[in-house]
Amino acid sequence: MPNPPPAAVGMSIDQVDTPALLIELDAFERNMKGMQDRMDRAKMRFRPHAKTHKCAAIAHQQIALGAVGICCQKVSEAEALAWAGVRDIMITNQLIGPLKVERAAALARYIELSVCVDDAQNVRQLASAAKKFDVQLNVMLEINVGADRCGVAPGAGVVDLVRLIDQQESLNFIGLQAYQGSAQHLRSFSDRKDAVARAAELTGNTVEVLKNHGYACRVIAGGGTGTHPFEAGSGVYNEIQSGSYVFMDADYGKNRNRAGEYERAFENSLFILASVMSHASPGRAVVDAGLKSMSFESGLPVVVAPAGVSYIASSDEHGILEISRDTEVRLGDKLRLIPGHCDPTVNLHDWFVCVRGTQVEAVWPVTARGAVY
Amino acid sequence: MPNPPPAAVGMSIDQVDTPALLIELDAFERNMKGMQDRMDRAKMRFRPHAKTHKCAAIAHQQIALGAVGICCQKVSEAEALAWAGVRDIMITNQLIGPLKVERAAALARYIELSVCVDDAQNVRQLASAAKKFDVQLNVMLEINVGADRCGVAPGAGVVDLVRLIDQQESLNFIGLQAYQGSAQHLRSFSDRKDAVARAAELTGNTVEVLKNHGYACRVIAGGGTGTHPFEAGSGVYNEIQSGSYVFMDADYGKNRNRAGEYERAFENSLFILASVMSHASPGRAVVDAGLKSMSFESGLPVVVAPAGVSYIASSDEHGILEISRDTEVRLGDKLRLIPGHCDPTVNLHDWFVCVRGTQVEAVWPVTARGAVY
Repeated sequence: MPNPPPAAVGMSIDQVDTPALLIELDAFERNMKGMQDRMDRAKMRFRPHAKTHKCAAIAHQQIALGAVGICCQKVSEAEALAWAGVRDIMITNQLIGPLKVERAAALARYIELSVCVDDAQNVRQLASAAKKFDVQLNVMLEINVGADRCGVAPGAGVVDLVRLIDQQESLNFIGLQAYQGSAQHLRSFSDRKDAVARAAELTGNTVEVLKNHGYACRVIAGGGTGTHPFEAGSGVYNEIQSGSYVFMDADYGKNRNRAGEYERAFENSLFILASVMSHASPGRAVVDAGLKSMSFESGLPVVVAPAGVSYIASSDEHGILEISRDTEVRLGDKLRLIPGHCDPTVNLHDWFVCVRGTQVEAVWPVTARGAVY
Repeated sequence: MPNPPPAAVGMSIDQVDTPALLIELDAFERNMKGMQDRMDRAKMRFRPHAKTHKCAAIAHQQIALGAVGICCQKVSEAEALAWAGVRDIMITNQLIGPLKVERAAALARYIELSVCVDDAQNVRQLASAAKKFDVQLNVMLEINVGADRCGVAPGAGVVDLVRLIDQQESLNFIGLQAYQGSAQHLRSFSDRKDAVARAAELTGNTVEVLKNHGYACRVIAGGGTGTHPFEAGSGVYNEIQSGSYVFMDADYGKNRNRAGEYERAFENSLFILASVMSHASPGRAVVDAGLKSMSFESGLPVVVAPAGVSYIASSDEHGILEISRDTEVRLGDKLRLIPGHCDPTVNLHDWFVCVRGTQVEAVWPVTARGAVY
């Protein structure tokens, strides 16, 4: 059973139960449109990553704005969004083991589905499962362009694996997954730019090698919120996968632009609404949002207002606020916090409470919350 | 909708989908019985904290072993466990705002319920809500005994607030909540002992002050997995609230005992079962469990076996394993990870997969997962 929603449409924000996962719709919609406009101007296909929001309502809005489909990270996430009507999904990840492989093949009966591989045995298992379910499965080869996570080394070594994919009647080789994840949060503009320049060079070389062996890469995919201008301008990539741009977070707020200022192309639209629940000592107050409401591995949340209030420490269900001498905070006050990291914070909640101004306009289920399989 | 369970009863552990939240039942049952035995020997009432497991199946087992009831941290958590049959719950926390206050009062129609306060206005609101729902609500005064979170300063200053509670016809003053949370993870035995000695002194003095004003503290509550022997032996506390002992975690594994060795009175019984999903480079592999499967704010998870494999970095859905030269790891291998911090890790999952040896014996819902309100 999901938890009951902390709000209902028509409520004032003051009536929302806390802690709640809040979307400010005006900022969210500017982010949504802003990124699609950038992709349109760059003539890039845009396939936003749904691992950020895990929400069918948002995925459908992204597609309505012009996205060609969405990315997911897990087959269970793809299932949840497919059953909610999303028709074109790329799983930007390896699916290992018979359970996951067969679920992907079965899902391909219902939607256009692509998956990533970096292993020969996995290619054979996917081919066998696709045959069993009588589907054609689209396959991307993942190459390691600097993130040092999944993916085979780029360059001439990939030819054997692509040949193996191409030989499988039930698989379609469609291209390369070349995501430079570790570049997204490099703080300086030039560091991010240089990291993607290197990734694009490695990717371009690999495309060339494959072309020389007769294998065309229809899709050359990567890019994230921190680096998408560089992939989009590389002349190599043709499909961009940014996700966090819809919400942003405190960590992304530390990236700098070309002028060395904080990058503000996209706005914080995601907040945790929390209430002051204890104020028994001057200088210290406690809010009702801690480790079970926000993810902390990328740093502490930032208090939006009032100035003079800082979130300085957390336990499971509590956050400690430091209150400066001339700031007044009262029991029951509601504060907006910008979470350190949006994706794992969203995954803690069952509902988005969507507000325009001070009014609740929608309550969206986090469709694939906890879909980690 | 919860996600479908990653296992079914009777499966071998090799068939369980990953990542999964695993309980090893033999170790879990030793922990459960071991703590209750300690409490019985110390003639302490035991009210384990359910914020660790959030699971009605576990709460009922704790009560069957001798616990007087359970603790919760949130009113939504208490509701979820009450509707699953738990009849005596103490919310060790302040409930602020009309929504939460009224839910607590309404819940007290169905179960024996106690809540904590540290504010006069909150006392009046609770009294008014209890009157509205025609119930008697048990109230604990929380005092700050060193954790510097919620709670009023101990000592003579508490008398006015207790008098106010006592004056409310719909409220029963039952005692003091005096939890020294920040002592639980002090690594040295003597530091933990000293911190609780100080907490017990402050608490004992407060009990004495109240007694001199005619207010009896029937319940004097506190204690956690890291410090319960000290509260139980203090001569001051009479009700102990440990929670993490059922599972333990990597953070608790760093506490030392009197002899300076790692404290091993309770065993790790909670694991994340993860699969190797990429091994495209020698020396590095990737597992399918990251920030959405485990909490990282208390440190990285520990790989149980094989030796020579370390979990060295995480992203949302991935964990990077460093593989020593003479260790072999294959794609699809399943590993057990000890999470850094058990409570927020449990809160990420819908199901406990309970194994005895290599066989799945039970699948328990995490009844109050995400109940953060």
